[in-house]
Amino acid sequence: MAILRRLPPIRRAEARFQHVEEEVLRGLRERMDALDPAASHHAEAFQNRLTISLEQDTDTLEMEIVQGLAGHLVSDEWRLLAALSDGSGYPLLTLRRARWRDSGEALHRYSSIGRSAGVYAQEYVPLYLARLINNGLAAALPERAALRMDYELCEGDATFREAQRRWGGERPPLKVRRETLVISPAGQRLWDTVMQLGEEER
Amino acid sequence: MAILRRLPPIRRAEARFQHVEEEVLRGLRERMDALDPAASHHAEAFQNRLTISLEQDTDTLEMEIVQGLAGHLVSDEWRLLAALSDGSGYPLLTLRRARWRDSGEALHRYSSIGRSAGVYAQEYVPLYLARLINNGLAAALPERAALRMDYELCEGDATFREAQRRWGGERPPLKVRRETLVISPAGQRLWDTVMQLGEEER
Amino acid sequence: MAILRRLPPIRRAEARFQHVEEEVLRGLRERMDALDPAASHHAEAFQNRLTISLEQDTDTLEMEIVQGLAGHLVSDEWRLLAALSDGSGYPLLTLRRARWRDSGEALHRYSSIGRSAGVYAQEYVPLYLARLINNGLAAALPERAALRMDYELCEGDATFREAQRRWGGERPPLKVRRETLVISPAGQRLWDTVMQLGEEER
Repeated sequence: MAILRRLPPIRRAEARFQHVEEEVLRGLRERMDALDPAASHHAEAFQNRLTISLEQDTDTLEMEIVQGLAGHLVSDEWRLLAALSDGSGYPLLTLRRARWRDSGEALHRYSSIGRSAGVYAQEYVPLYLARLINNGLAAALPERAALRMDYELCEGDATFREAQRRWGGERPPLKVRRETLVISPAGQRLWDTVMQLGEEER
Repeated sequence: MAILRRLPPIRRAEARFQHVEEEVLRGLRERMDALDPAASHHAEAFQNRLTISLEQDTDTLEMEIVQGLAGHLVSDEWRLLAALSDGSGYPLLTLRRARWRDSGEALHRYSSIGRSAGVYAQEYVPLYLARLINNGLAAALPERAALRMDYELCEGDATFREAQRRWGGERPPLKVRRETLVISPAGQRLWDTVMQLGEEER
Repeated sequence: MAILRRLPPIRRAEARFQHVEEEVLRGLRERMDALDPAASHHAEAFQNRLTISLEQDTDTLEMEIVQGLAGHLVSDEWRLLAALSDGSGYPLLTLRRARWRDSGEALHRYSSIGRSAGVYAQEYVPLYLARLINNGLAAALPERAALRMDYELCEGDATFREAQRRWGGERPPLKVRRETLVISPAGQRLWDTVMQLGEEER
């Protein structure tokens, strides 16, 4: 992992992410400092805030949106987005409540992208995948024949087998689906924007 | 967009949202100021925190919950909730991994609500929709015949067609589903609560 | 609820959660204090941040990840995780856009776990369930025969019936599914880690 984190693209990604995060903190501090506790419960202060809100410029709005969408990601999720950002597809195993041909709701996800991307907390990869997919930053596409060997390796993973065992007695039985993890178009756009923010600072 | 943002309901919504946000910041600042770094690693300080937690009054609890549920929304998502808050249904196109009659997992969402609500960053509408729906604030209901013309307009949208093209080669092929975007009952309740908080301040 | 909150396991859970939250606040304050506004737009400061990022030790990384994954939970969601953390399954009703045998997308969820766990804002239980499930902390397993009586009680709940009525006219009609709410393997791991953090402080 130490070696991967030193590779230039990941290195730049982390530094730029940290930059965005600092902008959030700086903005928070400024707004905290600007709060006047004595005025907080008066209609006047409320009117002032309204005026400020309507005069907010587009740069501030854009920064607020990028921070809101990217700011809740933990550093490991940032590493996963970095690995996905070149458009690669990674093997993904999903435990689903599937019946017949129905795709069914995903209950647990596992992917070897955790190791490729050098995430620190491998045990939270299922959480990272749920968060990235359900918040629209990544997507689970159908199985890819080219990843056959990788699926087989994933199926032997200890944490994935533990999840399978844990829910092995359910009726109707849960099914394992082979899928492909990719970045979403909007996830790609968010990534590119954060990368550009970092570039502009240099 | 400038005109829409000046309409009274949206105007009030933004000001009230900003008010909630400021309450979060004020609470954060107070709690940061209250932290005594020297005491942080002692059992005594831990016991004190426990006592404070159990004595927390219901007003504080309610504010903490409203802030926790609404505080992570970006301003554009707030604009979408404002548009949905009168109970209207908006045309929604969802790209799904559907097979046969199966509804299938949503991979990408697009709705013209972005333009109606005057969101600033149109390119992030798919992210906003994923976040609102998966966090329980909005829901995707079945197609409505009355929206037929709107679905046709949505199907011509450049960003939606780009997502379709990007994943056009998948097998089995992804399907476009016409759906209806509405606010959820709990989303409505959260919206009404935030609106009331604003009113009480006036 | 007052009685439940005084039970030792919940009491410890809340205190430990508050501890994690304070660590977040402390970290935020330190980083805010460390920001030098004058240096913020220089390449030099950017290089310094990069160096700091790469030298971050594993304890700091782990704390950052746990805070990022647990820090956005509201206290009521923490109460739900506390109830689920012994591995119990709770009755869950899900309103789905199901067709035939298809499981279909979940539009609304309700569970009596809200009352068992002593949550403060019962009206937001559908939001809590959506957030816990879609962020990978909990999962909806198939119906359990042993919970038959509990499902019947849930089906009579006023807020669940309100949601059913609200969307009762949709075509094709929505279906109510009986399911079982459980903690996920990664949710269990996160819970155990937060509990240990609290223990170490004593």
